[in-house]
Amino acid sequence: MAVTPSSASLEALQSLDLDPAFALHRGGKLEIRSTVPVRDAADLALAYTPGVARVCSAIADAPELAKDYTWISNVVAVVSDGTAVLGLGDIGPAAAMPVMEGKALLFKQFAGVDAVPICLDCTGVDELVETVVRLAPSFGGINLEDISAPRCFEVEARLREILDIPVFHDDQHGTAIVTLAALRNAARLTGRSLGELRVVVAGAGASGIAVSRFLLDAGVGDIAVADSKGLIHEGRDGLNPVKQALARDSNRAGLSGSIERALAGADVFVGLSGSTVSEEAIASMAPESIVFALSNPTPEVRPEIARKYARVVATGRSDFPNQINNVLAFPGVFRGAMDVRATTITENMKVAAAEALAAVVGDDLSADCVIPSPFDERVAPAVIAAVSAQARADGVARL
Amino acid sequence: MAVTPSSASLEALQSLDLDPAFALHRGGKLEIRSTVPVRDAADLALAYTPGVARVCSAIADAPELAKDYTWISNVVAVVSDGTAVLGLGDIGPAAAMPVMEGKALLFKQFAGVDAVPICLDCTGVDELVETVVRLAPSFGGINLEDISAPRCFEVEARLREILDIPVFHDDQHGTAIVTLAALRNAARLTGRSLGELRVVVAGAGASGIAVSRFLLDAGVGDIAVADSKGLIHEGRDGLNPVKQALARDSNRAGLSGSIERALAGADVFVGLSGSTVSEEAIASMAPESIVFALSNPTPEVRPEIARKYARVVATGRSDFPNQINNVLAFPGVFRGAMDVRATTITENMKVAAAEALAAVVGDDLSADCVIPSPFDERVAPAVIAAVSAQARADGVARL
Repeated sequence: MAVTPSSASLEALQSLDLDPAFALHRGGKLEIRSTVPVRDAADLALAYTPGVARVCSAIADAPELAKDYTWISNVVAVVSDGTAVLGLGDIGPAAAMPVMEGKALLFKQFAGVDAVPICLDCTGVDELVETVVRLAPSFGGINLEDISAPRCFEVEARLREILDIPVFHDDQHGTAIVTLAALRNAARLTGRSLGELRVVVAGAGASGIAVSRFLLDAGVGDIAVADSKGLIHEGRDGLNPVKQALARDSNRAGLSGSIERALAGADVFVGLSGSTVSEEAIASMAPESIVFALSNPTPEVRPEIARKYARVVATGRSDFPNQINNVLAFPGVFRGAMDVRATTITENMKVAAAEALAAVVGDDLSADCVIPSPFDERVAPAVIAAVSAQARADGVARL
Repeated sequence: MAVTPSSASLEALQSLDLDPAFALHRGGKLEIRSTVPVRDAADLALAYTPGVARVCSAIADAPELAKDYTWISNVVAVVSDGTAVLGLGDIGPAAAMPVMEGKALLFKQFAGVDAVPICLDCTGVDELVETVVRLAPSFGGINLEDISAPRCFEVEARLREILDIPVFHDDQHGTAIVTLAALRNAARLTGRSLGELRVVVAGAGASGIAVSRFLLDAGVGDIAVADSKGLIHEGRDGLNPVKQALARDSNRAGLSGSIERALAGADVFVGLSGSTVSEEAIASMAPESIVFALSNPTPEVRPEIARKYARVVATGRSDFPNQINNVLAFPGVFRGAMDVRATTITENMKVAAAEALAAVVGDDLSADCVIPSPFDERVAPAVIAAVSAQARADGVARL
């Protein structure tokens, strides 16, 4: 096929690069490096033919040796179909790549995990599952990312069933782990048990559903979840199966209508929606309330407004105190699981990660410190140790 | 699922690691590195949220920008199904990984190309094609590797048709390029034109077929190809479509039977078979004969035997003169194509690579130097320049 080079393109790029985010992204953010010497023919004879053939033969005879003699036991695939990227929605696989590269950076920086961004040009559940299954021999773990709900739930569930390596949808479980850690510390600060708390969650996408489930499993007293059509309750028509199941297990008072109805007198607000909540609704919450307005880049309520009423305010942003950021969890969760060659990531391992993360705060606990900074160097080691130990306790470790 | 850690494994690995090839492969040969700083929150705000969102939005509006602002324009997927690995045959995807990692090392070392090894757990042509198509948004090129014939021909042809990035089955075309380069120089040394040469090829797998086609297209006088059942000719029953087509275009004398019949009086032998050829057959070739015994690690005829009769002897091994090694071609071919964002790799681009490679030898031409060393630093720049220029000349360059 013939192609006409576009002569205007260089000028257009130079203009984009005036934005430092574009300048930094020019050419991408990752590279592949060799960890062995390739200086001369003797090096090649070991790293490539003929030496490599002996290693291949050994793995053909004992496939488990691939974990010892290839890089796969340190490599996670960061897999997306580009359907739910940040707050941008369905922007497709090519446009999702900068986020997946960013995720790979964070895996390496915070836990030494090699991660390969894989943006797939398919969106059907069957296609996503079969593609990841075919890719699986090349990786030691699968981090699903930015796949829209409700497909993400089935994709993850089926992959967890089929594969014997960790599969983890970070939008769900990373968010859930960090939110639980922050909530544990906020409850401790305000002298309440999780069982006493009535929580309202805005958003019933991947993270809203997963956070709600995880908090319920952790013993939170009650949760009411709202999506764009209002509160989810058993009497509501047209709920998908995931929301139907959540309706059965949440919103004990059976509240219907707008989220404001549930916020009156509630102890905790968790925003995972991209929507907004009024100052009046925040003001109507119980005393010593806890507000986690996690949407990025625009929190559901401005933190300076929320602080007028709430004891603890957290956001997803780095420019306010209490940044609830998945990077506190996913690098250490995968490192901890892969270090012991766990066959899966159990619920217990996620709980252990949340507890380890909460414990890092220790005596520094205050309204402005319910969660550590992403750059706190104690975080990853604590999460890694807790996850590895729990994998062994749960009988899913191979080492 | 419960797992029992095997306590004997460490001891077994220590024993394997007495072999330096195993010791070098422990933990794999590759890593992912960041090319941008991730030191603090300000760095993260550019490389990840919120800065990354602006880059994603721009790519969503103008998908071609993915080539400028992600790593894909420098990344090749090295894709195998593990069905034809080295001389080992169908050893499966896990056991193929050390070879694919090795290939990735060579891409980086010799041409600065980032390459990701992808070993797929599927072998059907449809499955391989659809999987690579789904992966394609994540890569700037596809290097197919160690996929058995005849499936490899259809997989490559269909991917070339569907995708607008370079797709190149190295076992075919890398071998063909380097073989043609060496043959041009051997013909020059012995004062013959390609049109005068009668060539015999042992092997009708991926490389045997591709080398034969490439030499015929380059103007070689006649070629006779033998597979494990003997010479391929139009009258032979049970040929697959690829071999039927080759039978029509080769073996003008219609020779049948064993390869020895064709070698009598032949000018050139090219071994790509893993089989052996007798000393008597080599002795029966024309004066000033050319013997390329390329099977690894065991050449079809020992080079010290072949030298008794032939003017030029080459092998695939690094411990003899004239090493005909794909690494002379594939790194520069991809770098040259991707530097100009070629939509495909044309026949002309492969010919240009072969001619550039042959020309590097220049005045050093001798019976022991018909092809440069893989460590000759002039090789990659020469191949890159020739391939880029030819892509522009063929109208397939986007830059």
